[in-house]
Amino acid sequence: MATVKLLSDTEAGPEARAVFDDIRATRGTDDINNFWRALAHDPALLRATWDRLKAVMGPGALDPVVKEMLYVAVSIANGCEYCVHSHSAAARAKGMSPEMYGELLAVVGMASQTNALATGLQVPVDPQFRAD
Amino acid sequence: MATVKLLSDTEAGPEARAVFDDIRATRGTDDINNFWRALAHDPALLRATWDRLKAVMGPGALDPVVKEMLYVAVSIANGCEYCVHSHSAAARAKGMSPEMYGELLAVVGMASQTNALATGLQVPVDPQFRAD
Amino acid sequence: MATVKLLSDTEAGPEARAVFDDIRATRGTDDINNFWRALAHDPALLRATWDRLKAVMGPGALDPVVKEMLYVAVSIANGCEYCVHSHSAAARAKGMSPEMYGELLAVVGMASQTNALATGLQVPVDPQFRAD
Amino acid sequence: MATVKLLSDTEAGPEARAVFDDIRATRGTDDINNFWRALAHDPALLRATWDRLKAVMGPGALDPVVKEMLYVAVSIANGCEYCVHSHSAAARAKGMSPEMYGELLAVVGMASQTNALATGLQVPVDPQFRAD
Amino acid sequence: MATVKLLSDTEAGPEARAVFDDIRATRGTDDINNFWRALAHDPALLRATWDRLKAVMGPGALDPVVKEMLYVAVSIANGCEYCVHSHSAAARAKGMSPEMYGELLAVVGMASQTNALATGLQVPVDPQFRAD
Amino acid sequence: MATVKLLSDTEAGPEARAVFDDIRATRGTDDINNFWRALAHDPALLRATWDRLKAVMGPGALDPVVKEMLYVAVSIANGCEYCVHSHSAAARAKGMSPEMYGELLAVVGMASQTNALATGLQVPVDPQFRAD
Repeated sequence: MATVKLLSDTEAGPEARAVFDDIRATRGTDDINNFWRALAHDPALLRATWDRLKAVMGPGALDPVVKEMLYVAVSIANGCEYCVHSHSAAARAKGMSPEMYGELLAVVGMASQTNALATGLQVPVDPQFRAD
Repeated sequence: MATVKLLSDTEAGPEARAVFDDIRATRGTDDINNFWRALAHDPALLRATWDRLKAVMGPGALDPVVKEMLYVAVSIANGCEYCVHSHSAAARAKGMSPEMYGELLAVVGMASQTNALATGLQVPVDPQFRAD
Repeated sequence: MATVKLLSDTEAGPEARAVFDDIRATRGTDDINNFWRALAHDPALLRATWDRLKAVMGPGALDPVVKEMLYVAVSIANGCEYCVHSHSAAARAKGMSPEMYGELLAVVGMASQTNALATGLQVPVDPQFRAD
Repeated sequence: MATVKLLSDTEAGPEARAVFDDIRATRGTDDINNFWRALAHDPALLRATWDRLKAVMGPGALDPVVKEMLYVAVSIANGCEYCVHSHSAAARAKGMSPEMYGELLAVVGMASQTNALATGLQVPVDPQFRAD
Repeated sequence: MATVKLLSDTEAGPEARAVFDDIRATRGTDDINNFWRALAHDPALLRATWDRLKAVMGPGALDPVVKEMLYVAVSIANGCEYCVHSHSAAARAKGMSPEMYGELLAVVGMASQTNALATGLQVPVDPQFRAD
Repeated sequence: MATVKLLSDTEAGPEARAVFDDIRATRGTDDINNFWRALAHDPALLRATWDRLKAVMGPGALDPVVKEMLYVAVSIANGCEYCVHSHSAAARAKGMSPEMYGELLAVVGMASQTNALATGLQVPVDPQFRAD
């Protein structure tokens, strides 16, 4: 169903396998999910994407579960089926409760609605919202 | 610049003014921002939108600042200029620090990138991500 | 603000001016709006776009005002500022009342919200909705 | 395939079942489609979504079949597979003929094309389109 | 899975079959892909879409493989599963190598990321980018 | 108009100024455009974005002007005003002629239209397009 064959460990080249190894070590699991197996056709793109993802989603000012919920919100708005599934699962694994999930969906739905209303009405930005 | 005239307090009808009063009481400010003044042409839509926003963004399992950051993330993905400005300001008012803002932008950028890659490669969803 | 200069009647070439003439005759006005003046840099694209627009928006099974409201709905969802303004004005000119406009916005807002919820929950399509 | 289990009548809690009952009574059918069974995990979100949908899609200044066609148009632009299917079926049930459907698709296609052209050229809004 | 039945050659009317014949002659293959079989319900829409596609994707200032890659890029950004598959296949058939495909995906991913950052930060356009 | 103040060279910290220096050296110009001045509030995000952009847009299997046109196409589809302007200017600087620009717009418009039609009709992917 992908536009490329998903590469197994033996089909992937040494550079891609090195990224697979890093994913396994970082996540503490043997699973390499399909996204990375598809990207393995272009080892440089695979490496750049994984390295950046690891840096962005790591510890910082925001809680990891908040970062995953933000990821889900963007993935919904962009209509990415794969990303909605993978990051909803990741958010749950990092502590998103059913109540948090319900609120996440409610906020995403509300934002989508008022985004449409503000765009439909072409509401000008209030001066007090401007940072400059 | 809006597709309708923004209604002042005196131009708005009594039903719309009642919503303005509730916004002022809830937010503890005299300001009514342009979004509500544009919606005031349709008091039923204004009322339904405000009531739902108040319910969704109120206290719950998620921190109010997290809800505002989710709102910003969706508004960016949907390209709503008004909403990006108003909810970035709201997130700051509710405690979003510059560090949190930088991470929010980094997550939204990363998600947008991998959304595009997963959609471009049409990666099939891994069985382990499925809830059913 | 456009990425190209908007061409006046004298700056446009003869092929573009012929399209301008057809727009004027069809619409019964001397005004040529900015969209066509920007497209005039590529007379073939201008001609193909205008001819198709005239065919699609002309009389048929749907009322012209319904077609304009559909145009507004799509333009909101796609976030096109220019198109939201031009087609909201056209819908009004063809008979959209304030009540119809309020309902249009309410439907667009509702659809945007449930689009997000259905995508967020990745709801599978019910068998009874399928045409095949 | 959903991110949550679709809840049967016996799995849904009493608040969700009360919404199911209202859907059945309003629509005059025993079927509860998957969207509502997925939302049933969060009875408050289910209730708010259904109540608002019923109010928005009910009788008014716009014909019910026009509202459903607007819903389809937005759902196409937002790329929501579930919503395209469910609201295309609803539009047919409310009287959309094959000719009306063909024109709906033609308008949505045309709007998508000129949305892209106007955004690509960054055409400034003509003064005569402005309501203020 | 489509919202309409895909029409076979015998089910399609004479106007639709004439378009099928032109597609076969132009492409030098007997295959008519599903997109055209779905559009065949509305012969006028089928004809207008095919005629315009043939004109736009034909020889010109841009190489045919570049046009197909642009088509893929837009289809990814719009989240169109069908179009991503059909135009990725077409781009390959017209000479897109694995290296070119990797770079296409990298550019689309990068653009999606910086689109989000520029929209999130609401960066004003620099005067030197303006054509007027 | 941005959500943050655009930082001048003296306001930017040493890490951000080092990126500015690299931009100047790479592009052979003293200008630092607004996008980078907005990102300078988060030097790590600025650095990661610039380094990745430089790698992705550099020489490779695709011509630099083709990469810029792909960037424009994605930016149009995502509705990013800033990016449409900056990358249309960059494409021109790298050799995009008016004829190439007209064809770029025509392809983007055509793709947007058929994306909508394929999504509206929910056309199933033909087996021959699948890579696996």
